[in-house]
Amino acid sequence: MRAVVLRHFGGPEELRPETVPEPRAGEGESLVDVTYAGLNFADLEIREGVYAPPALPAVLGADVVGRRRGDGRRVVALLRQGGGYAQVAAVRDAYTVEVPDGIDDAQAVGLLEQGCTAYCALVTAGRLRPGDSVGVAAAAGGVGHLAVQLALALGARTVTGVASTARKREFVRSLGAQAAVAEPRELAEAVPGGVDLYLDSVGGAGLTAGLAAVAPFGRLVSVGGRGKVSDSVAVDELTDRSVGVYGLWMRRVLEAPSLFARTADRLFALAAAGLLTARIDRVVPLAEVGAAHAAMAARETMGKVLVDVRA
Amino acid sequence: MRAVVLRHFGGPEELRPETVPEPRAGEGESLVDVTYAGLNFADLEIREGVYAPPALPAVLGADVVGRRRGDGRRVVALLRQGGGYAQVAAVRDAYTVEVPDGIDDAQAVGLLEQGCTAYCALVTAGRLRPGDSVGVAAAAGGVGHLAVQLALALGARTVTGVASTARKREFVRSLGAQAAVAEPRELAEAVPGGVDLYLDSVGGAGLTAGLAAVAPFGRLVSVGGRGKVSDSVAVDELTDRSVGVYGLWMRRVLEAPSLFARTADRLFALAAAGLLTARIDRVVPLAEVGAAHAAMAARETMGKVLVDVRA
Repeated sequence: MRAVVLRHFGGPEELRPETVPEPRAGEGESLVDVTYAGLNFADLEIREGVYAPPALPAVLGADVVGRRRGDGRRVVALLRQGGGYAQVAAVRDAYTVEVPDGIDDAQAVGLLEQGCTAYCALVTAGRLRPGDSVGVAAAAGGVGHLAVQLALALGARTVTGVASTARKREFVRSLGAQAAVAEPRELAEAVPGGVDLYLDSVGGAGLTAGLAAVAPFGRLVSVGGRGKVSDSVAVDELTDRSVGVYGLWMRRVLEAPSLFARTADRLFALAAAGLLTARIDRVVPLAEVGAAHAAMAARETMGKVLVDVRA
Repeated sequence: MRAVVLRHFGGPEELRPETVPEPRAGEGESLVDVTYAGLNFADLEIREGVYAPPALPAVLGADVVGRRRGDGRRVVALLRQGGGYAQVAAVRDAYTVEVPDGIDDAQAVGLLEQGCTAYCALVTAGRLRPGDSVGVAAAAGGVGHLAVQLALALGARTVTGVASTARKREFVRSLGAQAAVAEPRELAEAVPGGVDLYLDSVGGAGLTAGLAAVAPFGRLVSVGGRGKVSDSVAVDELTDRSVGVYGLWMRRVLEAPSLFARTADRLFALAAAGLLTARIDRVVPLAEVGAAHAAMAARETMGKVLVDVRA
């Protein structure tokens, strides 16, 4: 099969298509004939060897969609150990869900990873309620643009997105956000009473500014990734302002019985109802995965980047 | 009028009944002919001069019940600047609620301060949902014994209380808690899946152990008081475990439009329905306020201590 192989940690040029043997399905796994694999920001850091470095050579890629061998069902799956940028992937059955009719392959893989993160941050951890005011960092990004739509679909009173460029802010407003600002520190002015729930994905100054914009009894949920956010918060400061801080890690979602499958069902139902659409920024062939990594690193993309592994 | 006056910071012996002039009602205030005033743990620290020291001489006391002059209505009020241990108190109208028929004076003042803290910690900040597993620190204490009852009344699946003595644990179980443990570090064993919501009122090692017992996507709410809990939490640790930490300060409840009045209504409705009862540990006359402080300092009391200012 064809796959994009990483033989040395480094720049996007290290990602090269090769012909390699198909993976084997282990216990509790199945093989999937992949159509699209997702590219994720974490992949860039893995490629550079700065985050969760795998043994080399490696095939990166954390989410795929395609047909499961054996039953021929259309499935979408998360891969916690890579293997996505390939024509065949070995997927864990526990991290696999069937794709309903009416949701195409690109939408399915565009929604799953980032949609689960956004949904579980807003609902499972953040306990979003109808009427809440919601703020979303990196609101034109993979998690962010789904979080904006989810918050609105779930009854948020207002959603305010943070996005760095005018083009991205225009996109955020086109999703239904009432306002879009360039920096988290502009939130306090844009949302005078503060937000009841703020989704942070950046940490550092962005987290501090986001937390400052949280209304009394509100919460910030950090989805910046494990091992990536070095902030600490003083409980006394939380008490003074009467706010809360959460972290969310996708692994805990996958470990919790049935949560992943229930969340995926909910995402697909919202998508089928027209309330949630993954923006597919571009679909590239295997030979252009490196170039796509470079575009993501330059923050040129909005929404999900896919690789069509058949091309 | 008679009042308990503090002329020097120090031990319980510094609290002495005296005859002093009645207070005057300022703008937005009313005078109340007090029946009972509440004693609170914060009063002990104020008396010692170690927390929020007032100008001396001072009358301590943060909550009173009685009849409002002018309209003769039975009211209960929070006093943020003291003045409770007295036959007449000047209360802010914004911090005053009328007591419904069927709730007696002792219950009204027994429920208000600690009940608002417990309710807002569980519901407003913690967003308790039916089916949640709840843990309560100091579960035989003023806030804790109300939190146990509130969590059950609001549909908690299980409530586990922490209380230091066998007598207190028996009391906690008598409130309906499924289990009572002696130390927060015993929670993990008592509640195998962890708690979805943990109410902490102690900070330090208790907070750390309580947080360790919080289930994924669960939360700890600290009601230990502003300026009293010195813990910090690393956002990355919250992410790793996918949990949250809140602080709650009563001042923010009082500042939020209508929240205090709505919460008081809810508490009284639950009390009227037989679902919430403040345990009155003892009622002392003015001359025994010092002795009651000593009993509270020795952790001999369970629930609320009142002073009958008419006695």
